[in-house]
Amino acid sequence: MIAILSGGVGAARFALGMANLIDPQDIFIISNVGDDEELHGLHISPDIDTVIYTLGESINPETGWGLNGETWRVMDALAAYGGLTWFRLGDMDLATHLFRTQLLREGVTLTEITDRMRKRWNVKPKILPVTDGHLRTVLFSVSAGVEKRMSFQEYFVQHAHRPIISRVIYDGAEEATATDEVIQTLETASAILIAPSNPVLSIGPILSVPGITDLLLRRRDKVVAVSPIIAGEAVKGPAAKLMSELGLGPSALGVAQYYRKIISAIVIDSADANLATDIRALGIETAVTNTLMDNVEVSRLLAKTALDMIGGGPN
Amino acid sequence: MIAILSGGVGAARFALGMANLIDPQDIFIISNVGDDEELHGLHISPDIDTVIYTLGESINPETGWGLNGETWRVMDALAAYGGLTWFRLGDMDLATHLFRTQLLREGVTLTEITDRMRKRWNVKPKILPVTDGHLRTVLFSVSAGVEKRMSFQEYFVQHAHRPIISRVIYDGAEEATATDEVIQTLETASAILIAPSNPVLSIGPILSVPGITDLLLRRRDKVVAVSPIIAGEAVKGPAAKLMSELGLGPSALGVAQYYRKIISAIVIDSADANLATDIRALGIETAVTNTLMDNVEVSRLLAKTALDMIGGGPN
Repeated sequence: MIAILSGGVGAARFALGMANLIDPQDIFIISNVGDDEELHGLHISPDIDTVIYTLGESINPETGWGLNGETWRVMDALAAYGGLTWFRLGDMDLATHLFRTQLLREGVTLTEITDRMRKRWNVKPKILPVTDGHLRTVLFSVSAGVEKRMSFQEYFVQHAHRPIISRVIYDGAEEATATDEVIQTLETASAILIAPSNPVLSIGPILSVPGITDLLLRRRDKVVAVSPIIAGEAVKGPAAKLMSELGLGPSALGVAQYYRKIISAIVIDSADANLATDIRALGIETAVTNTLMDNVEVSRLLAKTALDMIGGGPN
Repeated sequence: MIAILSGGVGAARFALGMANLIDPQDIFIISNVGDDEELHGLHISPDIDTVIYTLGESINPETGWGLNGETWRVMDALAAYGGLTWFRLGDMDLATHLFRTQLLREGVTLTEITDRMRKRWNVKPKILPVTDGHLRTVLFSVSAGVEKRMSFQEYFVQHAHRPIISRVIYDGAEEATATDEVIQTLETASAILIAPSNPVLSIGPILSVPGITDLLLRRRDKVVAVSPIIAGEAVKGPAAKLMSELGLGPSALGVAQYYRKIISAIVIDSADANLATDIRALGIETAVTNTLMDNVEVSRLLAKTALDMIGGGPN
């Protein structure tokens, strides 16, 4: 059984590759919930949904998020009210949020709801929210001496990740509790893979939940990361820009430095082969391969490379 | 300026007739909110929406509720989850609930939200929720000695108003406050019309808000009701059945008796002409006319008959 620490699009593609490599039932995906958002009274979990829709082979292949064949009847009608439409929710996608919100109101845990969703999309890997409690990534930018607070989605979608970020906090992390399923998965997994997601915004919230980082420190020899940064640029999103703004190196080396205490291995892109020596000097085994997952076969080979590094792969 | 106490479909058709009779800007509709429901985390106000959609000439003419040309993408996708679909929410209609819920979460009052909705649908009459607070019609039935509690929509939609009702309460009424706009409207209106809505389930909640009934008692000479019951049957819904179950007369006479302290006049259907004498004996002026509003002209004439009874009509 292997574990994947997961953000959104990049992680979903990586997990799909893994599901084409090993028995999908042996895959346990531990999902970020720091980018969850309440809009219109609905509880939206974008990372979980992206992973489920991708593994359910229903993702919109052009955007990497949302459902294939989606329609926008509700958003169009909401726009006629002058309603809040910067976060585009498709009609079929809305059903996900209605379903989740109703069950949360009834007291069902996000873990249980996510499992019901997984089954509806015929997804074999288990998907585990890192916590059933409140955990939110909050970003701050400073303008004319005044600090502005943004939720992840306000930063990422509403402001198209343009603001220069001064600091990031994981709101609720101190009181958050990892679920039993997550702890058990991380305790027993033969390999723990950190997907090529934004280290600060997607993986950072997972690591902020009390106990998770300690557990990874203990299991460091089984933890391997895949760099989401290629030649100083994120494949998608603001990972490089944000890391630079926060004083972290915007490179595969920076990613390795960010994770250095909890990983024993990393996979970086061929474009970053020149960084391998510096990363190895940190005490991190380094593999170099193609990491740009523009099709499932690349994803599968990337998953294989990562697994092989710590001997967690199939025979 | 005239006031209409309003439930859903019947009241909406009556108000549409009134809007074809007098200057629509002089009409103030005081809406029931006792049938409001929280589903999927969304705040749904069916009576308000039916009135707005009807006056906005966008109602589905076949059902009398919901929007014309509606689609069901979200409900279909929700059904695939095994989600809660007994209360059918169309795609365009959902935008209304998203809009309302978001603004409620932001602290905007239902009164203000309803006014923004009204403008989007180009509706001229003002629509005023009787209260911005919590007020819910709750019905009870007894089965095998056990009392079962139902919200209005559970009773009306989920159980298709089949259960035999033992009692009805207006949850929250004691603490509810009528809005200033509602009080001012009822204080100053030249006529107060009680629309042909369910007396117990649609008008009863309005009357239960502290101060409203006292105000109507004082203004009784300006209050006229239209009976929703014709020849012992409700035009739509369970009014007659429910009144019978609660020991109230399931007839236009029963309606007059229910309202007797607060109305000085009533309009009943020609089919009930034989009840006029008994109603007049209650001290209630009685007009007899066609009350089956199967087109706008009937609605307009019905509105005229009602207004003429208390001299509130146009010159």
